[in-house]
Amino acid sequence: MALNNSQLQTYLDFAGQLADAAALAIKPHFRAPLAVTDKGAGLYDPVTVADQAAERAMRELIQQHYPEHGILGEEEESFRGSSPLTWVLDPIDGTRAFITGLPLWGTLIALNDGQRPRLGIMNQPHTGERFSGDGQAAWLNGQPLHTRTCPSLAQARLMCTTPDMFTSAAEHQAFQHIADQVQLLRFGGDCYAYCMLAAGLVDVVMEASLQPYDVQALIPIVEGAGGRITTWEGGDAQHGGRVIACGDPALHAQVLEQLRVFNPNI
Amino acid sequence: MALNNSQLQTYLDFAGQLADAAALAIKPHFRAPLAVTDKGAGLYDPVTVADQAAERAMRELIQQHYPEHGILGEEEESFRGSSPLTWVLDPIDGTRAFITGLPLWGTLIALNDGQRPRLGIMNQPHTGERFSGDGQAAWLNGQPLHTRTCPSLAQARLMCTTPDMFTSAAEHQAFQHIADQVQLLRFGGDCYAYCMLAAGLVDVVMEASLQPYDVQALIPIVEGAGGRITTWEGGDAQHGGRVIACGDPALHAQVLEQLRVFNPNI
Repeated sequence: MALNNSQLQTYLDFAGQLADAAALAIKPHFRAPLAVTDKGAGLYDPVTVADQAAERAMRELIQQHYPEHGILGEEEESFRGSSPLTWVLDPIDGTRAFITGLPLWGTLIALNDGQRPRLGIMNQPHTGERFSGDGQAAWLNGQPLHTRTCPSLAQARLMCTTPDMFTSAAEHQAFQHIADQVQLLRFGGDCYAYCMLAAGLVDVVMEASLQPYDVQALIPIVEGAGGRITTWEGGDAQHGGRVIACGDPALHAQVLEQLRVFNPNI
Repeated sequence: MALNNSQLQTYLDFAGQLADAAALAIKPHFRAPLAVTDKGAGLYDPVTVADQAAERAMRELIQQHYPEHGILGEEEESFRGSSPLTWVLDPIDGTRAFITGLPLWGTLIALNDGQRPRLGIMNQPHTGERFSGDGQAAWLNGQPLHTRTCPSLAQARLMCTTPDMFTSAAEHQAFQHIADQVQLLRFGGDCYAYCMLAAGLVDVVMEASLQPYDVQALIPIVEGAGGRITTWEGGDAQHGGRVIACGDPALHAQVLEQLRVFNPNI
């Protein structure tokens, strides 16, 4: 579905309202004390409570303003709208970061036009940072973001949330093959890593086992800042799975070629 | 050297001034754009410039107010004062976090009385978070911090900055032995991980290859919040090396015993 610039701006503003509503629902639960003896059914689990409350708040706003739009969220069942437009929601991307108190989790909101995510927001309410993008441009709190050039892996900064996300030996080896060549590897990051790539501070994010709602909001941010994001095979990243993002499109092509040569059958 | 409560408060206030001065020196360089082609002597390296400027600012304040105090810093030569009191400074702990734009680095400031660090500050200027402790109590921006109880590793959240910090197979295996038993492992964190432990959000931090200035400021914070921090052998953590911190002292004893049984000769 074609969206003109005015529609994109309207939906981006609305996505900002969704981010505000999610932040309001989540903030009371971030760093809430939890004794480990609080176990069993019915007892308080901050991340689950916050996740569900935030998705509920966002769904209510969407159904109120755009009842014809579809919704794909992490927590509840998908809703197929009469419009091809679908909101793709991950209230708390970075559960481990949230649980351990690190301000690197984010609320992910994408609007998919039926073909691809057209706009995305990553909102981090603890630091007050809102990253957004529409595939043509990207911003941090309204200031433009640009990826940086990085001619080779030897000069690159690589991020990955955790080595545990690679579920086969082939995935582990492929990641290690790339990691062995970079200047700097940093684990931990979730959605925040892609935003730092958009800001020109990270050159490569290489991950696996992603869900569509883990990545759709990040695509218009990365691409809007000048980067490239695909599957490890060069396919569309919006369905999740194994994803690689580079700030420099030329480096992205190099990395894909390396992965292909390293293991054509991965 | 014995310090009474009034002296401790005076020095903690002064440490806050040092943190302010360091923040002022560092902030312009955090997330400063850097093309990777900017290489070679004399060109701008944000983290080194910020590190040096912050240490210089802190040293000047110390020499102006307490010229008799010693200084041990990451960047410049140690200064042996005529007093047994020594300031232990790490302007930017978490270089990789700083470089990749993550707000998890911190300025570490400890005052050592000649026997042990008596007070510590971890300051994160991007989030506006100042963690402090004096071994008896610990605070985040003035609010008291308390570790949580955690009876067993099966319920524990473990953090470690990076698996690369373990430099021998024995260290790797010992870490993995503990990591295999926990509920949740999160990499990436540096000084921030110890502060989240003090806040009751993380149960174990297990690291190696630390310098004295990487850990001294964190000891009064962790202990002040009710936690325990030693070397892997149970020795004094202030000299760095292999360090293990637990929020629950009983869990700390369990982990040390496990490490001893797993490899008595590590």
